[in-house]
Amino acid sequence: MSDILTVRHLFGPGPTNPYPEATEALARPLLGHLDPQFLAVMDSACDGLRKVWGTENRRTLPLSATGSAGMEAAFVNFVNPGDPVVIAVNGLFGERMCDVAERCGAEVTRVDFPFGEPVDAQKVAAAHPAPKIIAAVHAETSTGVRSDIAALGAVKGDALLLVDAVTSIGGIELKADEWGIDIGYAGTQKCLGVAPGLAPFTVSDRAWERRVEKPRSWYLDLGMLGGYVGEASGATRTYHHTAPVAMVASLEAGLRRVLAEGLDAVRARHEAAGRALQDGLEEMGLELFAREGHRLPELTTVKVPEGVDSAAVRKELLETYNIEIGPGVKEYASTVWRIGLMGPNACPESVTLILGALKNVLGR
Amino acid sequence: MSDILTVRHLFGPGPTNPYPEATEALARPLLGHLDPQFLAVMDSACDGLRKVWGTENRRTLPLSATGSAGMEAAFVNFVNPGDPVVIAVNGLFGERMCDVAERCGAEVTRVDFPFGEPVDAQKVAAAHPAPKIIAAVHAETSTGVRSDIAALGAVKGDALLLVDAVTSIGGIELKADEWGIDIGYAGTQKCLGVAPGLAPFTVSDRAWERRVEKPRSWYLDLGMLGGYVGEASGATRTYHHTAPVAMVASLEAGLRRVLAEGLDAVRARHEAAGRALQDGLEEMGLELFAREGHRLPELTTVKVPEGVDSAAVRKELLETYNIEIGPGVKEYASTVWRIGLMGPNACPESVTLILGALKNVLGR
Repeated sequence: MSDILTVRHLFGPGPTNPYPEATEALARPLLGHLDPQFLAVMDSACDGLRKVWGTENRRTLPLSATGSAGMEAAFVNFVNPGDPVVIAVNGLFGERMCDVAERCGAEVTRVDFPFGEPVDAQKVAAAHPAPKIIAAVHAETSTGVRSDIAALGAVKGDALLLVDAVTSIGGIELKADEWGIDIGYAGTQKCLGVAPGLAPFTVSDRAWERRVEKPRSWYLDLGMLGGYVGEASGATRTYHHTAPVAMVASLEAGLRRVLAEGLDAVRARHEAAGRALQDGLEEMGLELFAREGHRLPELTTVKVPEGVDSAAVRKELLETYNIEIGPGVKEYASTVWRIGLMGPNACPESVTLILGALKNVLGR
Repeated sequence: MSDILTVRHLFGPGPTNPYPEATEALARPLLGHLDPQFLAVMDSACDGLRKVWGTENRRTLPLSATGSAGMEAAFVNFVNPGDPVVIAVNGLFGERMCDVAERCGAEVTRVDFPFGEPVDAQKVAAAHPAPKIIAAVHAETSTGVRSDIAALGAVKGDALLLVDAVTSIGGIELKADEWGIDIGYAGTQKCLGVAPGLAPFTVSDRAWERRVEKPRSWYLDLGMLGGYVGEASGATRTYHHTAPVAMVASLEAGLRRVLAEGLDAVRARHEAAGRALQDGLEEMGLELFAREGHRLPELTTVKVPEGVDSAAVRKELLETYNIEIGPGVKEYASTVWRIGLMGPNACPESVTLILGALKNVLGR
């Protein structure tokens, strides 16, 4: 362990560098988890989350664990053993949903799409006559692809629509209510520009009425969490577990920063940075991986040129430039790079830095 | 939300005020969760945890959620449906264990002791002829009582010994290996003096061999986490979920601070502060709640004097002195206070402050 602190440019699939407001809040004097001042911070965080989710859902809160625990909460609170669940899979996180849902006892119908392609709502709708849940990933972190959640909402019928918004929240358009999202989970460490450790979560009234009464998980039991956040206020708050107060304060500060800039402006900044990066990569003669027209601005996937050692390039970027980018996943581990420009990194200087460094390392 | 930051003296059952080293680390430049520099931080945290646990267990790591998730991980990874589990209950957290274990499908045999009393190892051992797991709380946060874990280890036989060390770790003697603890979970926000958000966890080889192959929880699946921490090193680390990097850095810094002072010195400091507090409370004519000889130094329970409005006292302590203390739990909610002196708060100035403030508020 060196005593010299290193400043990394976190241009991988996440975590990103946090907004300074979010970092500053981490180091504030700690409040107790039932302190009225902390409850005000929590309420403000929940209000901010409603805005970035695009929802009026009363039950919108940060769960006390990372985004993957959000995925688990989304299934464990709504799947009874034997329930039919349709899951659209166009990347690693769709696959993970299948694993998580099966552990909850779901009868999973998996609808596959090639990595790099978006989800097709019609195919998903045709996969099962009466699923309890239809699940999909809005922004696939493993492939850099955006899927059309509104189209899924339009065909969901009686099913609950469960959506992974880990890499979309705070970066691209997200309209939970308008699109018909019933159960949504996200992460803090991507476009929201906050350190990892919490899972922003939202539940519609429609889903709430169909939840599992006593889920297999105590920690993620939304019914018990309801007494602490969303359901109650002031003196009636009941203790469930000790909230990660520093992380919640950081999320609240990050959200206030995003909302002060304005959601539209933040999204435009992500869009501009991502498109500039993608244009620059193509100008360097590199080929993008995700299907055109469905590319995320906040997370770009690009093919490793023939004959180039993917890991060696990442190592040189890290060691010479303090730049982290991500490898691809599964069969694309050595043939794709993932470059994220999220939160405070969605800016022209990051685009210039990563393009310049990559040019130097590749000798282009 | 005020722009003026309040400094609270967190003398409740937790969280405590963090050590300054732990707070400073939260605000360091963020590292990626697979960055070699972060993996060194994680390894150092795991090494430090082995020391405070008193174990050589290779599988010792911070889980990415709060202590209650540690409890859930302790059961979900080791209980198959129908497994007999004996749980000693002498407070709220023993009760919670029953709920968590039952959700995992355990056949729970509950052995009750009055709140305020320690667990009796012989009674626990006699409760079932062949349990898979015997579970108990080392330091009951709800009552301020210490139980004899070594005695349970001596009678566990073929069972796995599962122990809650949330409020003991880093504050009082804890010898996981010597006492025969097979599965242990803890929290960061008590005597370790770190913000809440992680669950220090340890597993013996004996328990590892009897774990559930595919637990119902994906997020807390120790088999999958093994690829990231403890099992592997360097290039072979595999991605499971995004670790809460800021919290892990904070824990590592807190542990280094505790170990620099020395575990014996830290424990002596907790002992001295707690006993001075307890003596001072009795000198004020107040009556302690926990059975003498089994009182935790780090968490003191004291009876609310007849005719005194418990909540009003806590409110005045908070509003006038910025001091947080906790109420009792369940039937003792308005008749007991819980006063914690943990981590950096285990010091003479905290004892003087809380005794002085309480004297003023009670008019004694």
